Amino acid sequence: MAYNSIIVRLEMNHERINFGNVASAVSKAGGDITSIDVIRSGQLNSVRDITIHVADQKDTEVIDALKQLPGIVVVNVSDQTFLAHLGGKIEVTPKMPIKNRDDLSKVYTPGVARVSNAIHENREKAYSLTIKRNTVAVVTDGTAVLGLGDIGPEAAAPVMEGKAMLFKQLAGVDAFPICLNTKDTEEIIRTIKNISPIFGGINLEDISSPRCFEIETRLAQELDIPVFHDDQHGTAIVVVAGLLNALKVVGKRIEHVRVVVNGIGAAGVSICKMLLAAGVTRLVPVDREGAIVRGGGYDHHPMWAWLAQQPQVEDKAGTLQEVIGGADVFIGVSRGNVLSAADVEQMASDRIVFAMANPTPEIDPEEAMKIVRVFATGRSDYPNQINNVLVFPGVFRGALDCRARSINEPMKLAAARAIAAVVTAEERNEQYIIPSIFNEQVVAKVRRAVVEAAILTGVARRIPPDFR
Amino acid sequence: MAYNSIIVRLEMNHERINFGNVASAVSKAGGDITSIDVIRSGQLNSVRDITIHVADQKDTEVIDALKQLPGIVVVNVSDQTFLAHLGGKIEVTPKMPIKNRDDLSKVYTPGVARVSNAIHENREKAYSLTIKRNTVAVVTDGTAVLGLGDIGPEAAAPVMEGKAMLFKQLAGVDAFPICLNTKDTEEIIRTIKNISPIFGGINLEDISSPRCFEIETRLAQELDIPVFHDDQHGTAIVVVAGLLNALKVVGKRIEHVRVVVNGIGAAGVSICKMLLAAGVTRLVPVDREGAIVRGGGYDHHPMWAWLAQQPQVEDKAGTLQEVIGGADVFIGVSRGNVLSAADVEQMASDRIVFAMANPTPEIDPEEAMKIVRVFATGRSDYPNQINNVLVFPGVFRGALDCRARSINEPMKLAAARAIAAVVTAEERNEQYIIPSIFNEQVVAKVRRAVVEAAILTGVARRIPPDFR
Repeated sequence: MAYNSIIVRLEMNHERINFGNVASAVSKAGGDITSIDVIRSGQLNSVRDITIHVADQKDTEVIDALKQLPGIVVVNVSDQTFLAHLGGKIEVTPKMPIKNRDDLSKVYTPGVARVSNAIHENREKAYSLTIKRNTVAVVTDGTAVLGLGDIGPEAAAPVMEGKAMLFKQLAGVDAFPICLNTKDTEEIIRTIKNISPIFGGINLEDISSPRCFEIETRLAQELDIPVFHDDQHGTAIVVVAGLLNALKVVGKRIEHVRVVVNGIGAAGVSICKMLLAAGVTRLVPVDREGAIVRGGGYDHHPMWAWLAQQPQVEDKAGTLQEVIGGADVFIGVSRGNVLSAADVEQMASDRIVFAMANPTPEIDPEEAMKIVRVFATGRSDYPNQINNVLVFPGVFRGALDCRARSINEPMKLAAARAIAAVVTAEERNEQYIIPSIFNEQVVAKVRRAVVEAAILTGVARRIPPDFR
Repeated sequence: MAYNSIIVRLEMNHERINFGNVASAVSKAGGDITSIDVIRSGQLNSVRDITIHVADQKDTEVIDALKQLPGIVVVNVSDQTFLAHLGGKIEVTPKMPIKNRDDLSKVYTPGVARVSNAIHENREKAYSLTIKRNTVAVVTDGTAVLGLGDIGPEAAAPVMEGKAMLFKQLAGVDAFPICLNTKDTEEIIRTIKNISPIFGGINLEDISSPRCFEIETRLAQELDIPVFHDDQHGTAIVVVAGLLNALKVVGKRIEHVRVVVNGIGAAGVSICKMLLAAGVTRLVPVDREGAIVRGGGYDHHPMWAWLAQQPQVEDKAGTLQEVIGGADVFIGVSRGNVLSAADVEQMASDRIVFAMANPTPEIDPEEAMKIVRVFATGRSDYPNQINNVLVFPGVFRGALDCRARSINEPMKLAAARAIAAVVTAEERNEQYIIPSIFNEQVVAKVRRAVVEAAILTGVARRIPPDFR
């Protein structure tokens, strides 16, 4: 459930109403007053700003309740979410002030010419003398934004800006949003290659399937900086992290469990790949047409065809309802309410369910929590939130610090294991398999694991000082 | 003359040398000690960092002089210009911290979905709810960087970053460098169009002629945000500003003077256009092949062909030396030392010479200043520096504030007149026709003039509050 804060400016007539009446009306309508500011106070009237925490889309009910009170005028309603977005959420700032001509001649003409010449002589110096070593492009075409679908590049911008905030605050990475006015695969690839010189990495975001596969694969081949489609791999990494801990909680080993993954789009494919890398031996990928089976022909979908060739993928066809029986793990990145309680009850005992459809999970959380051992969703109002904010800051911090040529499968698995390891054996239980995104250890541990894996797999072009 | 600061770490043996010896050796070699830090001090030895201000390329002489002193070890030499560039000069920062889950749910998921939806419903809301309204792309392909030529996109980055610093510090504009890995005109146009949704304006920079004309013209037609090639128009605006004041100093009127413009490339074309718009009636554009004459055929160069059609352009052919006789004004944006003192002495009395070739002006400044009434260069070590840092911050501040569809000729002329007007009649003289880039009035006055002209010519899509 999403919450929102609104600020309501009220003019109250003291002869007709007191604040207790206001507070109880707000409560009855489902709101929670979190702060009050008295703007003006007189003998007869006073004006106050009250901040109300309220469930999304319930704000009109609260405001209507206030308007119906006697002696009250609702002067104005502000929405804190919209207020926080006014003028955008990030800015581009100089690292030092230009106080005088001497400063100017260092950072701009004429002194900058010597620096440009040095990079011209040795292009690698861009990593020390420009922002490249710390800067990531957050690139979208606006086609698969949150649960909203193809809403266009302008509408995607607030999400990319939010991501840039998190990059900087959590990992000190400078990220800039690039919102593309094209959906053409080749055009997207060309554009990103054309703008790549200033960037040390490319974070692809909210690009719809199947174009996202081709775009990421081609860019990874054609650029010498790391390219990472967060919707695929960010989600997969945190799912695997959560699963590693969930399996410890229920006392099962990854090579013994049977795992059903429902929804084989951008995230689902990457989850399946990582599960295989992590040691899963019995995998059942399922999409709308039913289970993707070993040996099946999937000419229209190269990633499904790849899955059908993997020996760990089962060869028994069937609908989700037909194949879920006896499964130890269900991982859903599909649509709301595709599972009933009866379906889940067909699974093995000590079952694990990750229901990550957004905003409505594959099964109602209240129902599911009664009948599974470990339950996780993408939502923040239940335990075990699967959130890729745990992933991208540390992955890019590590990739930039070791100047990785790419972000390969061992680096992704290392990131997953690092996130899992933040939860200690003492802390770990059914309600706590995944650390909070505000846990201060996460970025440092993910970074360390990613750098180590990059060095071991030969994609690091620099050994950071703390690894020497 | 460009200066540089170096920091030299010295170990001094007190029995063999004292600091007075060091200071006089530095002075003799042409350096100027601006600060001293004692790093370690013992009975026999001390270690000090001395900061030395020194003319460009003279630093080795200073260091050699120090090394030859007895009792001195030069431990290390740091170059402040390179130090200032380490890790780049700009960063991308959040406007507010994300302190807790409540903050996160406002600026990122799930709250951001409502904001994205609002923009999806009305694309214009990108101007209020994203960084678009305050953000400019500084775009280069690295083909004409400073006086260095085609040094590539990576080597151009420090210049673009410096420009982004100036945008923010002087005008509060968020600017991000885009360094393109292509020199193809169509590819550049397509790439800029593809990345345009997040930007409120495009500042083209250091793109070589003649491609820059086509790129700017096409983008101005095909985008609904302002596009401005600073090398063309920034230079032209500040030249016209300086000329307006220079003409007042010598007591001539713009419609009476004969103006020779040498070097009809990116800047030269724009200067000619603006001179005509400003009222010049006798114009002589000159390039390497000599004067561009009215009625001449210039099929290979559309901008020259355009000039040849203008009635104010003279029809007499000739070399620069042949056509300069009797001219009131010479404006050079060409190459070093193309003019001799004898050439300049052929000009009319009370002559005005702007010699802006970089780094060596068209005529030696020391010689020129003796024989002309008003002299200006692009250099900071002589009076009257023609510097487009005076232009772009205020022009974009104005264009963004009124959400201008484009930056048209009246807006450019308004900017030039505003810069000229910063110098009052009392202040104005041969040595002071152009304000300093640190003059705090410049940006505000340019902004005001640009907004006013945008409103009058119908390209403003918003009336800023201070114009209502």
